[in-house]
Amino acid sequence: MTTAETEINERPWEELARSIETGDAAIVKAYLDTLPATDQSLALDRLSDENKQAVLAILDPEDAADLVSLLPDVQAIELMEDLLPETAALIIDELPSNLKADLIGEMEQEDATAILNEMEPQAAADCLRLSKYEDDEAGGLMVTELLKYPVVWTGAQVISDLGDHADEYRDYDVQYAYLVDDDDRLVGVLRMRDLLLSKRGTPLAENMISNPLSVFDTTSIEDLIDLFDRHHFFGVPVVTQEHRLIGVVHRASVEEARAEQHDSDFLKTQGIVGGEEIRSMPLLVRSRRRLAWLSVNIVLNMVAASVIAVYQDTLSSVIALAVFLPIISDMSGCSGNQAVAVSLRELSLGLVRETEWRRVWLKEVSVGIINGIALGLLIALVSYVWKGNAYLGFVVGLALCLNTMVAVSIGGLVPLVLKRFKVDPAIAAGPILTTVTDMCGFFLVLSIASALLDKLQ
Amino acid sequence: MTTAETEINERPWEELARSIETGDAAIVKAYLDTLPATDQSLALDRLSDENKQAVLAILDPEDAADLVSLLPDVQAIELMEDLLPETAALIIDELPSNLKADLIGEMEQEDATAILNEMEPQAAADCLRLSKYEDDEAGGLMVTELLKYPVVWTGAQVISDLGDHADEYRDYDVQYAYLVDDDDRLVGVLRMRDLLLSKRGTPLAENMISNPLSVFDTTSIEDLIDLFDRHHFFGVPVVTQEHRLIGVVHRASVEEARAEQHDSDFLKTQGIVGGEEIRSMPLLVRSRRRLAWLSVNIVLNMVAASVIAVYQDTLSSVIALAVFLPIISDMSGCSGNQAVAVSLRELSLGLVRETEWRRVWLKEVSVGIINGIALGLLIALVSYVWKGNAYLGFVVGLALCLNTMVAVSIGGLVPLVLKRFKVDPAIAAGPILTTVTDMCGFFLVLSIASALLDKLQ
Repeated sequence: MTTAETEINERPWEELARSIETGDAAIVKAYLDTLPATDQSLALDRLSDENKQAVLAILDPEDAADLVSLLPDVQAIELMEDLLPETAALIIDELPSNLKADLIGEMEQEDATAILNEMEPQAAADCLRLSKYEDDEAGGLMVTELLKYPVVWTGAQVISDLGDHADEYRDYDVQYAYLVDDDDRLVGVLRMRDLLLSKRGTPLAENMISNPLSVFDTTSIEDLIDLFDRHHFFGVPVVTQEHRLIGVVHRASVEEARAEQHDSDFLKTQGIVGGEEIRSMPLLVRSRRRLAWLSVNIVLNMVAASVIAVYQDTLSSVIALAVFLPIISDMSGCSGNQAVAVSLRELSLGLVRETEWRRVWLKEVSVGIINGIALGLLIALVSYVWKGNAYLGFVVGLALCLNTMVAVSIGGLVPLVLKRFKVDPAIAAGPILTTVTDMCGFFLVLSIASALLDKLQ
Repeated sequence: MTTAETEINERPWEELARSIETGDAAIVKAYLDTLPATDQSLALDRLSDENKQAVLAILDPEDAADLVSLLPDVQAIELMEDLLPETAALIIDELPSNLKADLIGEMEQEDATAILNEMEPQAAADCLRLSKYEDDEAGGLMVTELLKYPVVWTGAQVISDLGDHADEYRDYDVQYAYLVDDDDRLVGVLRMRDLLLSKRGTPLAENMISNPLSVFDTTSIEDLIDLFDRHHFFGVPVVTQEHRLIGVVHRASVEEARAEQHDSDFLKTQGIVGGEEIRSMPLLVRSRRRLAWLSVNIVLNMVAASVIAVYQDTLSSVIALAVFLPIISDMSGCSGNQAVAVSLRELSLGLVRETEWRRVWLKEVSVGIINGIALGLLIALVSYVWKGNAYLGFVVGLALCLNTMVAVSIGGLVPLVLKRFKVDPAIAAGPILTTVTDMCGFFLVLSIASALLDKLQ
């Protein structure tokens, strides 16, 4: 790839639409090939529904599959559902087996059935079986495209098979071939290199690695990450409980799944819950999903603010306090979120156990004391300069200082507690944190102020 | 891997410490092998500094390198800096070339020089050269462990070389061999499979793929992601400007770098800026980094709250408003952050261009209208039930409704604007969003209340 800067087309979908009008697969393909992958998905995203279907129908199924594989899953599924089942079946058939299964598995039942009916019975059965796996287990991450040979074969037979199927094996990882017995059970792994070094007539069993490492189709992504951390493998074979070979998980698929998990965790912490959002999705779907999260939050907010209502008299005596309430609420949220972020990350890196509450609390509260004092002094100074009342400075400074310690303690611990109780910390930690720190912050400011009321007026 | 549940050891570092006291490499290694990878890093993290150095000195350099490669970079660097340079050099020499270069590149200059001085001059020079590359370019992601042969060789020569160096090539990707001319320039790629199928005496040039795709050492990670999205390669060769072959970037490395980028973006949005934080780092480092971010935020918060100070008279006439100010501030922040998250993600997926302000604004404001009305009605109802004043409900409901629209508009657009001006949206979007929405929210509540003051009292 000579990475010469290509001229940026601001609206590639317009040119794509024009190429579709020609109805000529070669022209469409040639234009798409000039675009970077991200622009291909952008251009496709912005086409009219009619043109989206047209472009996939015009292209060769293989090229259409390449295009579909660039899209986020939700978009790819929507597109496949809108196509004629026979067109969709041809395209899906060209996708790698794990993506194929993902799309079929997440489609509306009815559309999936229509598409499967258009596929070869064997291919449809395979696809349906794969689609039952979760995305975060080996069965959902594996590809079924692999080199599999009877262990009784010789090197010469393998070499002849490779020659006969060169085209089919084009996208395969051919570094390893997997050797099975009569019952399709994995008995060995053959490195291509060892095959090269051996005499062609030698039985494969003499050159294979016996008792190779394998994982079950139900092995979790966490165990796969662990495995690839400990070994330099590019891939690991997947077997059923009966030890039948059914696929191979590549290191890159595990890394990709890990990136997607982080992505979805990020969206959750920011309040996009219940599935990814893409702005070309229908307005009401986007609105409803966001609102579900917001309505829980507004109730929690009202609960927190009710603390203020209790202290209305204090507040109306010293109205300046009202200026500081949102500052203390917001700053405690910030401090607490820092602790949440560090805990989430340490949990995912395995640097902390869910049970180590004491350690996390000690580590957090020591940061909280330093930062609480620094922030407290700053806000005390500002309020003293503004109102000339040292007691007001004392009240807000002390409240912010104490509440910072509370916030980092809660922020650090909440993800551990949630994880222990099998609640997704990415979704729940933020709302719990802000509700508790808001209540506590409002209470600290207003109760300390109530105690010193005669000095403040 | 038969994934039988291993008994969980709650404090693996204690047993590791005991095994270190034996001073026997075999015992230490045997214990480590019983632990999952995450527990190995946990156990190492919790050892005393003395024991950390002891375990790495006791183990074979190769096993020590395996252990070090499990750690987050910051921790691995700290450990290497604390070891005797000759011990560190032996261990670093066993790491894959990209990790080797990362560690040396990020170490204190002085420590790096001491370690490099203990290495073979050629290895040290290679390592130093690699350490100059950024983490997000091909040179920083590539490994230099690859099969490279003169294009004039025959298949038989390659096969004999593979046999001679079987041990050295153990962890290599041997799916492809790269063929170079006399000046080390890449001229072709040889698939192992094609080598297998050919006669052993055939010159490699007859079986190679000519003009293979390659990337420069300076190619960015974005272009690499694009390349791997478009092609089913497991790796791509890296060349200098003069087309000399210097390494290969694997798909898994690109996926891993992408996951790390998401990780660091997540930490930034939550206020962990200036490098990853691990709780075993020194207290003052952790505190200072967090405080840097918090002090910017507290100033922004004070600016926003100054709007409340302007309207003190209105507020003291209708003290109930003080209860709603933090709710409106917090809810607008939530709505805005949802829009920020969707924009950040669409930008990273390439589903939106930095210039498409109008599209994003239209998409966001339409969600904002629906959600603003819903949330506004809810809060209006609650305030009416609480105080029995319909005008109060009208004021807070209208303010929240309008401010929700403002928040989603700003939240959606700020990441685009920041990216256009080359500011990291992950760091800056949050603080800008909350400052503007707070100011606007306070202004809306208090100015509408001022206009209707006689109805509210």
